[in-house]
Amino acid sequence: MTNSIKITRRNLLGATAGLIAAAGLKPSAASAQQAAATAAAPAASKAKPLPSYVSWKHADSMIVHTPTTIETKRSAIGSSIITPTDRLFIRNNLPAPSEADIGDVNAWKINFEGVGKPQTLSVTDLKQIGLETMATVLQCSGNGRGLFPGKPSGTRWQTGAAGCVMWTGVPVRDVIQALGGVSAGMVYMTGTGGEKLPEGIDPSAVIVERSVPVAAMQDAMLAWEMNGEPMPLAHGGPLRLIVPGYSGVNNIKYIKRLAFTKEQTQAAIQKTGYRMSPVGQKGDPSQPAVWTMDAKSWVTSPSPDSGPVKAGVVQITGVAMGGLEDVAKVDVSLDGGKTWQAARLVGPDLGKYAWRQFVLATNLKPGQYDVSCRVTTKSGVEQVAQSTENAAGYLNSGWIAHTVKIDVA
Amino acid sequence: MTNSIKITRRNLLGATAGLIAAAGLKPSAASAQQAAATAAAPAASKAKPLPSYVSWKHADSMIVHTPTTIETKRSAIGSSIITPTDRLFIRNNLPAPSEADIGDVNAWKINFEGVGKPQTLSVTDLKQIGLETMATVLQCSGNGRGLFPGKPSGTRWQTGAAGCVMWTGVPVRDVIQALGGVSAGMVYMTGTGGEKLPEGIDPSAVIVERSVPVAAMQDAMLAWEMNGEPMPLAHGGPLRLIVPGYSGVNNIKYIKRLAFTKEQTQAAIQKTGYRMSPVGQKGDPSQPAVWTMDAKSWVTSPSPDSGPVKAGVVQITGVAMGGLEDVAKVDVSLDGGKTWQAARLVGPDLGKYAWRQFVLATNLKPGQYDVSCRVTTKSGVEQVAQSTENAAGYLNSGWIAHTVKIDVA
Repeated sequence: MTNSIKITRRNLLGATAGLIAAAGLKPSAASAQQAAATAAAPAASKAKPLPSYVSWKHADSMIVHTPTTIETKRSAIGSSIITPTDRLFIRNNLPAPSEADIGDVNAWKINFEGVGKPQTLSVTDLKQIGLETMATVLQCSGNGRGLFPGKPSGTRWQTGAAGCVMWTGVPVRDVIQALGGVSAGMVYMTGTGGEKLPEGIDPSAVIVERSVPVAAMQDAMLAWEMNGEPMPLAHGGPLRLIVPGYSGVNNIKYIKRLAFTKEQTQAAIQKTGYRMSPVGQKGDPSQPAVWTMDAKSWVTSPSPDSGPVKAGVVQITGVAMGGLEDVAKVDVSLDGGKTWQAARLVGPDLGKYAWRQFVLATNLKPGQYDVSCRVTTKSGVEQVAQSTENAAGYLNSGWIAHTVKIDVA
Repeated sequence: MTNSIKITRRNLLGATAGLIAAAGLKPSAASAQQAAATAAAPAASKAKPLPSYVSWKHADSMIVHTPTTIETKRSAIGSSIITPTDRLFIRNNLPAPSEADIGDVNAWKINFEGVGKPQTLSVTDLKQIGLETMATVLQCSGNGRGLFPGKPSGTRWQTGAAGCVMWTGVPVRDVIQALGGVSAGMVYMTGTGGEKLPEGIDPSAVIVERSVPVAAMQDAMLAWEMNGEPMPLAHGGPLRLIVPGYSGVNNIKYIKRLAFTKEQTQAAIQKTGYRMSPVGQKGDPSQPAVWTMDAKSWVTSPSPDSGPVKAGVVQITGVAMGGLEDVAKVDVSLDGGKTWQAARLVGPDLGKYAWRQFVLATNLKPGQYDVSCRVTTKSGVEQVAQSTENAAGYLNSGWIAHTVKIDVA
C-alpha cells in the first residue's frame, strides 16, 4: 500500500529485536540479523501483554519488550508536554519491590552519608524540610539503541524510552544544608536503590548504585510525587532521586542511601556498566560514564505507528530536549536534511530540563518524504547528525537515525 | 482527639449535604440543617462508589456526590500543578454519551455558523488547521458552593470541583480565520453540546448551549487531547470547547456547533440558568451570566482530609489562580486573616490561565490555627474576603469561606 507509512529497515530491525527480547531471549547480532531477514508479519500481532505490576498502563500505547523494559509508541506520547504516567516507559534494572516489601510509604528511610551530620531520615522527615516541583525529561540511557545502524546489545528501544515528567519532592541541596553540608573533598553523589537483591549473587554485581558528579546535587531532588500522584512503585516510589539532565539510570528508584563520596561506587552498574565503551570492547572505569544527556529531538507524528498520511496540510509534531540547557529552536527537514524549515515551539515552557513540543504545518503532495528534525540549544549547540555508536548503544541522539520515512498518498 | 484536624461546622455542613445529594435526594436548606445536626459518623463510611463511566478514576481521591457530580478531595490534588485525569472532578449537566453514540472520534463533526463561510468540519479537518497546547484551570461554576454560609441549592462542592488541565487542540481564532472570519455585528460565541437529549422534554429546557462574549474567542480552543491522552468521553471528548478564564459550564463538551450570534442563546441553561441571581430570586436574563472566574486560592494541605498535623515545621501548600491574569503573589495567614506572610510560588509557570502552587514553611506549636490564603494578581487585584452569596451559590471565591481550621498536637 502506498498510503501507509513505510517502516524503514532500521525500524524493522529494532522492532524485531524487541520481540526477541520480549520472548525472553538475549538478543545478539546474529539473532537480530536472522530475525530481520525473516520477519514479515506485522509486529502488532505478536504484542506481549503488560506485566501485572504495570497492568494499569495504557496497553495500546506501549510496546512490551520484556517485563522490565516497556516503551511508549512513537505516536502515543501526545502533545501535552507532560507524559501521562500510564503511558510512561518502564525500565527497571531489577524487579520493582511489591507494596508488601515497601510498607508505609511515609516511613521509608534513607541514609545520608558524607555530610556534616550523617543521619537517617524518613519520607515524613523529608516532607518537613522543603518542597519543590519541576519537570524533567526522564530518558533511558539506551533510548534510540534500536536506531543505531549496528546491533549493540540490550533492549532495542526506538524513541519511547523517554517521557517528560512533573516531579514533586525536596531539593537535595536543602536536605544536605540541613545536615551540615557536603563533607570536604567529596567528588561524587552516590545513590543506592532499595531493590531486593537476588540471592546467591555478589551484591555489587547487581545492586543499583550510581555515582554522579557532586555538582549535580544543585538541581537534584528526592521526589515522592510524580505527575500529581504519589510515586508509583513501578517508577521508584516511595522515594526516587531525580538528577535533572542525567539519563534514567542515574535517577535512583527506592533510594535508601545518598552518600557523598571521594570515589565512584565499585558496583558493576557503575564500574563496568553504563560506560561509553567502543564497539567490541567491554566496559571499564577508564571510559566515560553514562551521565548527562545530549540535545535531542524526534518527530512523533506522522510516525511509523500513527497511520496513513493523506496529501494536504499536515502538522508535523515532535519533542525536543536541550540536555542541560533550554531549547532555542527546532528545524524540520522533509528531504532527509538537505533543506530545513523552522518549526514553532508549542505550549508552555516547563524549564530547561523539560522538553518542548514543536510543530511545523506543511502542505505535502503525494510522494515519499524523509522527515528529520534538529534542535539547537540556547547556547547554540546543535543536535548531532550522528552519535558515535558504542558497545551498549547508549545515548543515541543523532538526527539522521531518528529520521522517519513517510509515504503520502 | 486533639491531634486530628477539626472539621469546621461549615465543612461538615457541606460534606453532609454532599452525602444527601449522593443518596439521590435533593438537598434543601431544611434537610442539610437536619443532617448537620445529626451527622456524627465519619463521611468515609458512607462513600459512594464511582459510576461505571468513570470507574477508571482514583476512587480514594474522589467524593461522589451523584453519578454526574464527583469532586476531588481537598488534599488529593497533589503538588504537580497539572491535575491527573484520574483525579479530575466530573460535572456533567446531562449524562455523557457512550462510545457507541460517538463512533469514530476523528469523524466527529462540528458546524460553524455566523462566519464568512459557514461549514461543517470533522476533527480530522480541524487537526489540519492548527495545533496549540495550553494549561487552564477548569472549575465548575458552583465550586465552593458548600462553603457559603447559606444553603444555596445544588451540589455542595467544597474545593474539589476544579483542576488544572493541559489541553491540546486548535485555536478557535485559526479555524474562524480559515472560515472567513466572524460575520459583522456578532456579539456572542455560542457553543452547543452534543449530549443525547432526554425524550419528551422541550430541547431548549435541557440542551447544553452557552453564549460567551465574542472576545473570548481570542484564547479559546477546540481541544481533542487532555493531559496527553485523547479527551475521555467523561470530560467532553471527542471535542471540547475550552474558554480560558471562564467557568466550567462555558467549556462545552461534545461540541457539535459553534455559532457567532447577535443574541445569547434562548436555552434555559443560559437564559435562566447560571445567572448571578440574588438569594431567593429566580434566574433571569437581566442578571449577570456566570462567565469569567475570579482570583481565588485555597490551602490543600494540611486540610480536613489530609490527616493529623504534628507540631514542628509544616509545609502549608495550596493552589492559586488569577482568573484572567497571572498570579503575582499569595499570602498565608495562620490566624484567620489578622496577620499574613508571603508564601513561595512553586514549580513552573504554565501561563495566566493555569494555577500556581504555593508553599509556606512554618513552625507550628501545638494549638488551633485558622489557616487562610489570599492571592493577588499581576494588576494588583486581591482575592475577595467574601463573595456575595447568590441563589445558586456560584463563583464562591472568598478567602474567609475557604479557611481551614487545623489542630496541631
